[in-house]
Amino acid sequence: MINVVYGNTEEGKRYLGKLKDREESIQQDVTNTVKNILDDIKENGDEALIKYTNKFDSENVNKNNILVSKEEINKAYEMVDKEFLDALKLAAENIEFFHEKQKRNSWMITKEKGVMLGQNIRPLENVGIYVPGGTASYPSSVLMNAIPAKVAGVKNIVMVTPPSKNGGINPNILVAADVAGVNKIYKVGGAQAVGALAFGTESIDKVDKIVGPGNIYVAMAKKNVYGYVDIDMIAGPSEILIIADESGNAKYIAADLMSQAEHDRLASSILVTTSLELVGKVKEELALQVENLSRKDIILDSLKNYGVIIVVDNLKEAIDMSNKIAPEHLEVCVENPFLVFGEIKNAGSIFLGSYSPEPLGDYIAGPNHVLPTSGTARFFSPLSVDDFVKKSSFMYYSKEALFDVGDKIIKLADTEGLTAHANSIAVRMKWGDRAQRPTVNLYPGLCFQASVR
Amino acid sequence: MINVVYGNTEEGKRYLGKLKDREESIQQDVTNTVKNILDDIKENGDEALIKYTNKFDSENVNKNNILVSKEEINKAYEMVDKEFLDALKLAAENIEFFHEKQKRNSWMITKEKGVMLGQNIRPLENVGIYVPGGTASYPSSVLMNAIPAKVAGVKNIVMVTPPSKNGGINPNILVAADVAGVNKIYKVGGAQAVGALAFGTESIDKVDKIVGPGNIYVAMAKKNVYGYVDIDMIAGPSEILIIADESGNAKYIAADLMSQAEHDRLASSILVTTSLELVGKVKEELALQVENLSRKDIILDSLKNYGVIIVVDNLKEAIDMSNKIAPEHLEVCVENPFLVFGEIKNAGSIFLGSYSPEPLGDYIAGPNHVLPTSGTARFFSPLSVDDFVKKSSFMYYSKEALFDVGDKIIKLADTEGLTAHANSIAVRMKWGDRAQRPTVNLYPGLCFQASVR
Repeated sequence: MINVVYGNTEEGKRYLGKLKDREESIQQDVTNTVKNILDDIKENGDEALIKYTNKFDSENVNKNNILVSKEEINKAYEMVDKEFLDALKLAAENIEFFHEKQKRNSWMITKEKGVMLGQNIRPLENVGIYVPGGTASYPSSVLMNAIPAKVAGVKNIVMVTPPSKNGGINPNILVAADVAGVNKIYKVGGAQAVGALAFGTESIDKVDKIVGPGNIYVAMAKKNVYGYVDIDMIAGPSEILIIADESGNAKYIAADLMSQAEHDRLASSILVTTSLELVGKVKEELALQVENLSRKDIILDSLKNYGVIIVVDNLKEAIDMSNKIAPEHLEVCVENPFLVFGEIKNAGSIFLGSYSPEPLGDYIAGPNHVLPTSGTARFFSPLSVDDFVKKSSFMYYSKEALFDVGDKIIKLADTEGLTAHANSIAVRMKWGDRAQRPTVNLYPGLCFQASVR
Repeated sequence: MINVVYGNTEEGKRYLGKLKDREESIQQDVTNTVKNILDDIKENGDEALIKYTNKFDSENVNKNNILVSKEEINKAYEMVDKEFLDALKLAAENIEFFHEKQKRNSWMITKEKGVMLGQNIRPLENVGIYVPGGTASYPSSVLMNAIPAKVAGVKNIVMVTPPSKNGGINPNILVAADVAGVNKIYKVGGAQAVGALAFGTESIDKVDKIVGPGNIYVAMAKKNVYGYVDIDMIAGPSEILIIADESGNAKYIAADLMSQAEHDRLASSILVTTSLELVGKVKEELALQVENLSRKDIILDSLKNYGVIIVVDNLKEAIDMSNKIAPEHLEVCVENPFLVFGEIKNAGSIFLGSYSPEPLGDYIAGPNHVLPTSGTARFFSPLSVDDFVKKSSFMYYSKEALFDVGDKIIKLADTEGLTAHANSIAVRMKWGDRAQRPTVNLYPGLCFQASVR
């Protein structure tokens, strides 16, 4: 049910290559469909938006009820399980606490002669959050996408999510949005919702950034509008890698491998271990535990195709392999996880020790569960407050300070052939008073010459 | 030579629309050419890389001289103007100083029962910098792209730049790369160079991120490999916006408008002013100064097509307009620029007062000159140290801490239908010792039940 390979073999290397090939191929007709929908929304606004929503999602949505009302939210609170609501609120509190620590101040430095330089850090003004409908509709993801924006100071957080056939929205999702501080919720989904957020319609204001997961149409639409607005990363198939030595608990490890595998058939669950004994025990536990899990079929498929146990000679080899794979989730189930922590270079989220399983981070610990997938942890980062701010540089130079460096700026501009750049400095330095214009050409490379004027 | 409109008119609004339409349309044959080159590089490595380099750039490049040698760099130092080198070194020093202030530490918080949470911030390991050839080959851009990576701690900074016909590289560029701390320089350019950095060849190692400007082939290639590697933003046509009141100096303002206009025919130079008197004076100065500038033709074209003076009633209106345009460069030439600074929401780089002209920031002040163009300052930021690091979340929970929240995690996972997630917690809490397995189903929503096993 799960493959076992040795790390230092050709087979081991082949497995790593296979991981990269999980991306679903995008059909040309998806691209065209998405482009047509986006063009239609851009041109016809609400009319097109309602048309597609009626066609794909629900005939009960119209201009008057496209925005979720306060009453609908109140009703959702009455409908949800109270224990669920308590758990959701604790999760929100912990997520807010962790993300508050990510906030940065604008900063400034002063230098001689009155010079001031700095970066002004401000929140984005308008953010759109996409929340999928149906079975992939997760309240926890609403929190993980909206709370960092709220903490960053985004004033206008808009959520879009496809309504069910009858025009309603899952009350768990509505409550999560309210707890997270979402300002407006619209009953639209798919590429048409992405188009509405990117271009604006009569009902929905244009935003600065769109975040949140979605199906292939949503992903293609986000990629398409990138540049008009910012987007978060396009998520690929996800993975867990567990590093374990002989102290690893087979029962826990098997359970954690399967918690990743249940996400979808392309998910990849990897155990890298120094212990041959553990291999047998984990296989046994997988077989035992899977029987009782509702997503058994998906788990078995995922484990068979992309699950693997890699046996290595020592911990260093395990960590090297993990750094190469750059997993989305990395569990370090070794005797003293902090002793190897410093060697971990590439991972989205790192779970240390036997009592920090992936679902802890997925739901309640506070760090974000929107993580770089498919090896992109080499260069991408978890969703954070940083994703909802923008920076502006600023500088103030006094006349004296500018004059100190003016000749050097002119020299550099001159060398690059940008004479209007040089001129911008020269008019201030040399020709501030026309009477003071030099009668010789001080900067031979420049085309503006005293003699000409 | 420059358009004048009133801010609160239809004409004023039309102008803003025009700004957005500057993007060059991408021809389908560019897309196909780029895709073919990238596929060829991916498949055939150095062989393809040398083939395209010989075809497009120089027949003198081969596997043995594709990497710039230490001797070539030494020779470049002998060839460059000493005053240029001095100016370049001052620029590098100031850029390094400013970017050092952007560095962030990894951080951690502890909570009750031994919980530890944090973010580990690490530099990317391998970065590729693209530097164009020919007239768009700017030593200042080499510094602006390479120094933030160096400051971030990137160990391996690789530069690619197309060689001239004879196989050489502009000595100013070589010296700038050396001053900035670039580790290796390869004589390749175009889509083939981007492909080599993204996929790796026998000569050039795969990188994690590619930054730097380039022509349409380079931009398309970068967009194409995004996801395999990270890239910086795709730069569009650039702009300056100057806010001036009656204290504005027409000579300086005209010079600064033209320093932007000389970049290219799509560049946009905008003056927003409360002073009708200034309008006349600026027009006069434009006409006078342009005569002496080497890029007169480009400047006149750019001013005519995308240059504009917008007259507004008061400073608030000027700032609102600037926030709407979100200019790449914003000069604030008013009596007390710091009194309006707090109102500026969207701008790539802000230049305060009459002695902080754009070229100061382009070359020597220290802040980066790689800035968000075409209104993207609403959500994008200047290139910075942040662009060369990645973050990993991490968490450690003790057994006691996990047990405190375990029921809530199970509730959330259960509600989302992710029973393997719930199982991962349950095996730790309830079934740590098999003898302790409950005989009743504690979590009715879960499919694994005590009775089953």
